[in-house]
Amino acid sequence: MKKNVLIIGAGGVARVVAHKCAQNNDVLGDIHIASRTKSKCEAIVASVHEMGNMKAEGLLESHALDAMDVAATVALIKHTDTQIVINVGTAFLNMSVMSACIETGTAYIDTAIHEEQDKICETPPWYANYEWPRKAECEKAGVTAILGAGFDPGVVNAFARLAKDDYVDDITDIDIVDINAGSHGKYFATNFDPEINFREFTGTVYSWQDSQWKENEMFEVGKEYDLPVVGKQMAYMSGHDEVHSLAKNMGSPNVRFWMGFGEHYINVFTVLKNIGLLSEQPVKLANGDEVVPLKVVKACLPDPSSLAPNYTGKTCIGDFVKGTKNGNPAEVFIYNVADHKEAYEEVGSQGISYTAGVPPVAAAILVASGEWDVKTMANVEELPPKPFLHILGQIGLPTCIRDENGERQLDFSK
Amino acid sequence: MKKNVLIIGAGGVARVVAHKCAQNNDVLGDIHIASRTKSKCEAIVASVHEMGNMKAEGLLESHALDAMDVAATVALIKHTDTQIVINVGTAFLNMSVMSACIETGTAYIDTAIHEEQDKICETPPWYANYEWPRKAECEKAGVTAILGAGFDPGVVNAFARLAKDDYVDDITDIDIVDINAGSHGKYFATNFDPEINFREFTGTVYSWQDSQWKENEMFEVGKEYDLPVVGKQMAYMSGHDEVHSLAKNMGSPNVRFWMGFGEHYINVFTVLKNIGLLSEQPVKLANGDEVVPLKVVKACLPDPSSLAPNYTGKTCIGDFVKGTKNGNPAEVFIYNVADHKEAYEEVGSQGISYTAGVPPVAAAILVASGEWDVKTMANVEELPPKPFLHILGQIGLPTCIRDENGERQLDFSK
Repeated sequence: MKKNVLIIGAGGVARVVAHKCAQNNDVLGDIHIASRTKSKCEAIVASVHEMGNMKAEGLLESHALDAMDVAATVALIKHTDTQIVINVGTAFLNMSVMSACIETGTAYIDTAIHEEQDKICETPPWYANYEWPRKAECEKAGVTAILGAGFDPGVVNAFARLAKDDYVDDITDIDIVDINAGSHGKYFATNFDPEINFREFTGTVYSWQDSQWKENEMFEVGKEYDLPVVGKQMAYMSGHDEVHSLAKNMGSPNVRFWMGFGEHYINVFTVLKNIGLLSEQPVKLANGDEVVPLKVVKACLPDPSSLAPNYTGKTCIGDFVKGTKNGNPAEVFIYNVADHKEAYEEVGSQGISYTAGVPPVAAAILVASGEWDVKTMANVEELPPKPFLHILGQIGLPTCIRDENGERQLDFSK
Repeated sequence: MKKNVLIIGAGGVARVVAHKCAQNNDVLGDIHIASRTKSKCEAIVASVHEMGNMKAEGLLESHALDAMDVAATVALIKHTDTQIVINVGTAFLNMSVMSACIETGTAYIDTAIHEEQDKICETPPWYANYEWPRKAECEKAGVTAILGAGFDPGVVNAFARLAKDDYVDDITDIDIVDINAGSHGKYFATNFDPEINFREFTGTVYSWQDSQWKENEMFEVGKEYDLPVVGKQMAYMSGHDEVHSLAKNMGSPNVRFWMGFGEHYINVFTVLKNIGLLSEQPVKLANGDEVVPLKVVKACLPDPSSLAPNYTGKTCIGDFVKGTKNGNPAEVFIYNVADHKEAYEEVGSQGISYTAGVPPVAAAILVASGEWDVKTMANVEELPPKPFLHILGQIGLPTCIRDENGERQLDFSK
């Protein structure tokens, strides 16, 4: 049994994590939230209290922390008696936070792959660049490090594993589809940090096809999907973290990720990219100053957390898994539908932050209970999926299935 | 008789001015070129020699100068014995260069209205904000200050005056149309300084209609024109310097400016503008630095002078002037057609720089000869147009006319 959670980060996802931890503080113990800007943490703490989301009496504290500073993070972990770190700060922090966890024997959970500021879309499989080489370190220290435990990556990895366990033998295709059919009412906005959002789409699109890595350009391969609730939607093959671990762990010759985009998003993205404004490399201004264009675009766009109050509509994210079952062709779609407005009413965030922020709390609950406290590094598909999906159903993200028997919500409690 | 020219600026237009001054140095005397970055001036000087554009033996010299520094400009004018300054630096310099000219009794010629860095599109008429209030100062000092002597403003003002002198009495409409039907082969580029280019289109579109200022938004009013050489082209009512002086000086109840834009330009412009990337006001980055987005866009776009080698196609810029003649309805289109490739072959610049840079040299020749040395401040339409258009025809920009008698080149030498 582990307890006391330190949340690193204070953006839209961290806010959801904080609210959900508070709603489960009878299991999780003390909740700490740390970010470079302490006032952002304080605003989250205030909102948890305002919305009455503390389940039990307990500690919910803000801290100022530069999580690139391993020694400072170690000190805060010790000072707060933290046993589980949920890292939902920027993707640039992962390695330093992981170092602090290994040094202190603390469980580590993140939701996105590590990135270096000046590199985009490195050699596949991405996890082999930073995370997997540290598995031995985690094992040696007996540290549980759960990688990519958001929705995608995260829940979709569990969906794939569930499909393999219960619905499809000899998997041939895993196609993960992420559709946000919501509307924020702004000219243009990204649903999470624009810097991370755009970085996802400016590099090569890696997919795993015919058991090898294939390269495409963004928006080169598109496909219309007809999905539950959100209906017909165009999605484009995109690079995404989970492709890189599922390709290794699932034995499927094909693993692809498809992200839904409207024509307007594609047009804006194309203009910004072609002009060079999405570049992570600095340009020199007329006065000699050097500036990274992407950081300026970020500063011009709406803060993703500001979208929440007016966001309407739903998301549908799930896995099409294809293969055979008992020798016959089999296909299943395992998915979740989330609602932007309901998310806002519950925790003050939009649906994208909600779907990303609830799963690491479910993972933390399983680490706390011991079920996922595996004392090594693991991607989500390497862990038993049912306890995870069961908790997710209880805390806001039910799992649904569509197959030859129709659409229905799965009940993991049976 | 005046002589010795100091060119301020070292961009694409300054390059054309330097080449054209050199081609006429038998009349203009010593040629000096000054800019903050002396190496840019030196590159221009080298290109003049390489292309054999010095007509007579004579001085062609580079200087480092911050033209915002009036005392430094005064010193350079004195040191070089300059009697005519051609200011083709950024539009932010006009007032300080004019001060240096007034202080030293030197003739002043520019090609665009004065702008302040942090203000866009001020109250109409624009010339009343900075230039016209200094007319008395010029008169008192006996200084000739010719405002807006590029192509537009500049030549199009002379076209309007020519129409009034010879073709149309009781003018009701002056519609200036500027079409660049050339192709630079880049995804997106502006033909002159992006900062100045975009600033033209981010503010209110002022036009003079029914003898009053009317406000529209950019791209709100579009019209297809069918023009000589370039054919049918969409043009949009835009704000432009010459509207603000012609409205005062021509007695026409309607003065409008129309700029040609393709759908691609409009799309890129709209995306950048709506996101806030064309703003001249600083935004704060995540690290606290303040940056002006427009300056970052500028740094990402191709340097306009880099477009020249591969630029093909033609420009057509002219005035539709409508009214009556001898009591009957009358309309005339007075225009010039320029060719990007021919411009490059002659002076190493593209057509837009060429059409902007040749006219101030024609004006300088007329100041040198005394014909335009009016010892006061004047917009081009206040000066006799024929000597100006005559010289322009001789040095590269012939004037053409289209009316009920067809299309033909005008011969001002007769």
